[in-house]
Amino acid sequence: MSVKPAEQVFSREQFDGILRRRFFYAPSFDLYGGVSGLYDYGPAGCSLQANIIDLWKRHFILEEDMLEVDCTALTPHEVLKTSGHVDKFADWMCRDLKTGEIFRADHLVEEVLEARLKGDKEARGIAHEPIEESEDKKKRKKKVKEIKAIKLEDSVVQEYETVLAKIDGYSGLELGDIIKKYEIGNPATGGPLEPPIEFNLMFETSIGPSGQLRGFLRPETAQGQFLNFNKLLDCNNNKMPFASASVGKSFRNEISPRAGLLRVREFLMAEIEHFVDPKDKSHPRFHEVKDIKIRALPKDVQAAGSTDLTEITLGDAVSTGMIDNETLGYFVGRIYLFMCKIGMDESRMRFRQHMANEMAHYASDCWDCELQSSYGWVECVGCADRSAYDLSVHSARTNQKLVVREALEEPIVVNEFEVDIDKKKFGPRYRRDAGKVEQWLLNRTQCEREDLAAELAKNGKIVAKIPDVAEPVEIESSLVNIEKRERKEHVREYVPNVIEPSFGIGRILYSLLEHSFWNRPEDADRSVLSFVPRIAPSKVLVVPLSSNAQFTPLVTQLTRELRKAHISAKVDDSSASIGKRYARNDEMGTPFGITIDFQTVSDGTVTIRERDTTEQRRGTIPDVIAAVRAMVFEGATWDEGTAKLAKFEGQEA
Amino acid sequence: MSVKPAEQVFSREQFDGILRRRFFYAPSFDLYGGVSGLYDYGPAGCSLQANIIDLWKRHFILEEDMLEVDCTALTPHEVLKTSGHVDKFADWMCRDLKTGEIFRADHLVEEVLEARLKGDKEARGIAHEPIEESEDKKKRKKKVKEIKAIKLEDSVVQEYETVLAKIDGYSGLELGDIIKKYEIGNPATGGPLEPPIEFNLMFETSIGPSGQLRGFLRPETAQGQFLNFNKLLDCNNNKMPFASASVGKSFRNEISPRAGLLRVREFLMAEIEHFVDPKDKSHPRFHEVKDIKIRALPKDVQAAGSTDLTEITLGDAVSTGMIDNETLGYFVGRIYLFMCKIGMDESRMRFRQHMANEMAHYASDCWDCELQSSYGWVECVGCADRSAYDLSVHSARTNQKLVVREALEEPIVVNEFEVDIDKKKFGPRYRRDAGKVEQWLLNRTQCEREDLAAELAKNGKIVAKIPDVAEPVEIESSLVNIEKRERKEHVREYVPNVIEPSFGIGRILYSLLEHSFWNRPEDADRSVLSFVPRIAPSKVLVVPLSSNAQFTPLVTQLTRELRKAHISAKVDDSSASIGKRYARNDEMGTPFGITIDFQTVSDGTVTIRERDTTEQRRGTIPDVIAAVRAMVFEGATWDEGTAKLAKFEGQEA
Repeated sequence: MSVKPAEQVFSREQFDGILRRRFFYAPSFDLYGGVSGLYDYGPAGCSLQANIIDLWKRHFILEEDMLEVDCTALTPHEVLKTSGHVDKFADWMCRDLKTGEIFRADHLVEEVLEARLKGDKEARGIAHEPIEESEDKKKRKKKVKEIKAIKLEDSVVQEYETVLAKIDGYSGLELGDIIKKYEIGNPATGGPLEPPIEFNLMFETSIGPSGQLRGFLRPETAQGQFLNFNKLLDCNNNKMPFASASVGKSFRNEISPRAGLLRVREFLMAEIEHFVDPKDKSHPRFHEVKDIKIRALPKDVQAAGSTDLTEITLGDAVSTGMIDNETLGYFVGRIYLFMCKIGMDESRMRFRQHMANEMAHYASDCWDCELQSSYGWVECVGCADRSAYDLSVHSARTNQKLVVREALEEPIVVNEFEVDIDKKKFGPRYRRDAGKVEQWLLNRTQCEREDLAAELAKNGKIVAKIPDVAEPVEIESSLVNIEKRERKEHVREYVPNVIEPSFGIGRILYSLLEHSFWNRPEDADRSVLSFVPRIAPSKVLVVPLSSNAQFTPLVTQLTRELRKAHISAKVDDSSASIGKRYARNDEMGTPFGITIDFQTVSDGTVTIRERDTTEQRRGTIPDVIAAVRAMVFEGATWDEGTAKLAKFEGQEA
Repeated sequence: MSVKPAEQVFSREQFDGILRRRFFYAPSFDLYGGVSGLYDYGPAGCSLQANIIDLWKRHFILEEDMLEVDCTALTPHEVLKTSGHVDKFADWMCRDLKTGEIFRADHLVEEVLEARLKGDKEARGIAHEPIEESEDKKKRKKKVKEIKAIKLEDSVVQEYETVLAKIDGYSGLELGDIIKKYEIGNPATGGPLEPPIEFNLMFETSIGPSGQLRGFLRPETAQGQFLNFNKLLDCNNNKMPFASASVGKSFRNEISPRAGLLRVREFLMAEIEHFVDPKDKSHPRFHEVKDIKIRALPKDVQAAGSTDLTEITLGDAVSTGMIDNETLGYFVGRIYLFMCKIGMDESRMRFRQHMANEMAHYASDCWDCELQSSYGWVECVGCADRSAYDLSVHSARTNQKLVVREALEEPIVVNEFEVDIDKKKFGPRYRRDAGKVEQWLLNRTQCEREDLAAELAKNGKIVAKIPDVAEPVEIESSLVNIEKRERKEHVREYVPNVIEPSFGIGRILYSLLEHSFWNRPEDADRSVLSFVPRIAPSKVLVVPLSSNAQFTPLVTQLTRELRKAHISAKVDDSSASIGKRYARNDEMGTPFGITIDFQTVSDGTVTIRERDTTEQRRGTIPDVIAAVRAMVFEGATWDEGTAKLAKFEGQEA
């Protein structure tokens, strides 16, 4: 139905003008000069976001009977210490001691080297592509003040390109080396920078009036889901596999956020934690997605310094081992389908695998759904296999089991070292350390137990350094016995693995705005946002031909009927011409316009206009509402939905 | 339809058991011992919350075409300094230096005096009412360890009761005096407490890597709405009055949160800011609510030490001046209707007016909708007239107008002092302070301008102390002229007032859980949550009679049909008896159960069961789904919805 031209130069100015005028979103606190990385959604943005979330919930939660939870953003230090975020959830930053400016190291390298490559192209007389051009302009304005047309050695160009392809995988040390090697300074002044240091991205606060309980704002919704694992498994009648899901705000104290909604400090996430048996990551519905063709960028291609995409079906990607397992592949497919459903341009979507050294500290494999916009390719969904990492660390820290117990059809025989503790003697002997000593003994692996048994047999005691106990502890053989025994197990107990599709709703919303935006070829000043009806902030604009009083009751009647049919609608009864009112509305992305004119007064019929084609049809109010319902709620096309209506050659004057 | 008995002793143990077992909500991080004041919602709680929000949005936002916004929780210090929250958003706390415990002063007074009154009643041999009893138990367990049966002087009883009726209105100093006068100490140890000190309730953090931008988590969603006022007015085509609305998390660092969901540190709010002309607070739809009878507790009654309720229609409350204006009255009515719609027990709802000294720093009049639960009467919705406070202070601080401009039909003649500044001389004369001096002059009131004009005439200069300028400033008459002039105004410019209905969704959800809870009189172990269908977490439980394979395709078919009809449903195909499965489900508050049995296999009919009465009817799957749709979406009663179905005398075995 869209008549959006295939190729069109992206005008950031026009695009930003619409977002501002129609209040999709705007910088927060701009009355106070704004705070970078914080944005407020206006009515149109709110509604767009709500519709994306609604469809997300239907597509994922309802479709697969996932268990939704809503956990707090405030999180005590200990939880995020255990999860690894206190130590590892950081980016590298460089300071310019002279100006006080702070740069995120990897972004700095990327922007400076890209600018040099552009300068090289200019020197060689090679033109850029239109989208790159605008990206270029933005960056030049923001950081790299001036791109100098300086030709580089061919070998240097090659080196720069390799660095850029691998940019997401460097450590702080490596970034420091690159900055030194390529003499990268403050892009504005050229001044020198301090070597990269780590900056933890979590917002810290303290909980309670004593100031003694350190806390953070969660950087992801996932931890709350892991901590509730036992309750959720119980809710699911102990059946595996199952998934939990959560939609909520997360917070990351980005070093120097730019790029609008794509890099913000407070954002809405929608995350799924699919708990699965580590021995069986097949998925019963994988066949439903196996023929979907994705554009993939696997890790070995990137490691070789290339960004060439491979078209491959999910069936092949899983069977060749490019994607590790069926469940991961299934969710990649579901993500792809979701993006198509909300109207994303699939030619600007790719799935990029994380390189080993860029993976989050908890992940064992990860595929990002990246969407292309004027800012380049940006991760909008991560789909990670977090293995048993999170459940294991929380369980170890709290000494509480986070496991699945499964009755075995055939009991199995196990030969293992077992630890028997004489609890009666432990208390008097170790006093307040008794619990720690006991837990330490019970937490030993089979190998360690074998060594301890040997030590006990040889020396009649164990001497051990136990965490949180000041002195080395002696444990005599009268207190503990460690020996290998055979036993039958009727129950299998395991820590599930977790497959985590994690959606950045703001990034998806922004990408969708760009993918939906175009100008009418016949009039470059008239822009359109071609949202699919399901997602559009408002579905119908009601337009009385003029301010004639005869139209007022008809407007009231029509909006009442629309509300009854659960169709969100706006009225524009301003004095602007019909054409102007529709043009304004095209900028809001409202798919349908209904005009009330003098013929409506006499015969009760109205015209309905389709936003992209500006085609019009005419029919009675009930027929037109039925058509809108079919197109909004049942996915009917314009031709299908309006089949019963008469063609109408209207005037958009 | 409900068969809930009129009077029933509330069992906290049973009630809490359901909340835990059915995972409505649970303490956050309980694997780590929990953090007081933080709770996670499980699947049932999430769904209940989502349904309340959905109905809220329909009842308020859609019904009145409000403009929804979604603003950040992170807020820079300067904004909340301006709004008054940095200085005034605090509670009073007392420390026990010996034990390190911290108490919220007003709650402490309340709990100790209440305990003494209970002790007095015991000594006098007077029994408590059932609900009070359980409240008593809870508190005794929590704070006041032991209630001693000590008889008090009649005059002391009278004093205590007066203090309790006025408890929300005391200053820190007054609380300190009361604590001293009545010798209130640590309730557990009797030990002495430090005098009350202020504790700001906002969570603080710092934004950005430099650590220099202080920020807070918002304590309310309102500020974001005020700061976007100009954009919102523009969205509304500059028409007044209009309302914005926002649903989102807010954060308050409560001193010692107890009382479960009723006092938490992170909570979902739904707030409306209705902007209105200060000269005209009438409301065009007030007539729709004027006959609603509320149970009111006005401020003068409380000031007199009483808590007696007055039954009064909103029409009378507004016309007698008890409620200040129609718009405030209109929203009180809409709040009442909303509470009824979600199934709140109206006999446990009252509207309490704030006393002058308890009002928030920004409010000029305020009515709370309070709901009664086992914790007593608790504010769940505040409905405040914030006057022009917020817009005025932000405007003054940022020197940006937050006003409405209205074309006057007849221009008006204004005689006012005007300030003319010679800008060319100002810069060289005052250098970097020039802007401040200019703003200071322009911001003077008419009275001040009159004085300044006199000073200028007398001395040929003004000497003034200007904020943020170190030295007193001299302004000679060659730089400024102040005189009274007549001018015609064609536009009226005013700062709108704000009426703010503000909903604590967690408190509403908790109260609804208590109001919906009861035990079957015939079997006290079987509890029910009688949610109205619209609000219930799940609408239908699908119950196959047994695990017979013949039922499987029918279950699949039925759930598919239900999903198509947008009815959320769960399947319970466990091996428990039908009766047990229904009993479990009654605890979830699912209004309808559909059983698939052998007759379904032969003739395609199923039975539908109503939760409260356990009545059953039988019909074909399409007829039963139509009945459910009518009852869930159109508000049909059981008899109306199932009129087409046959009566069925089933067995819940």
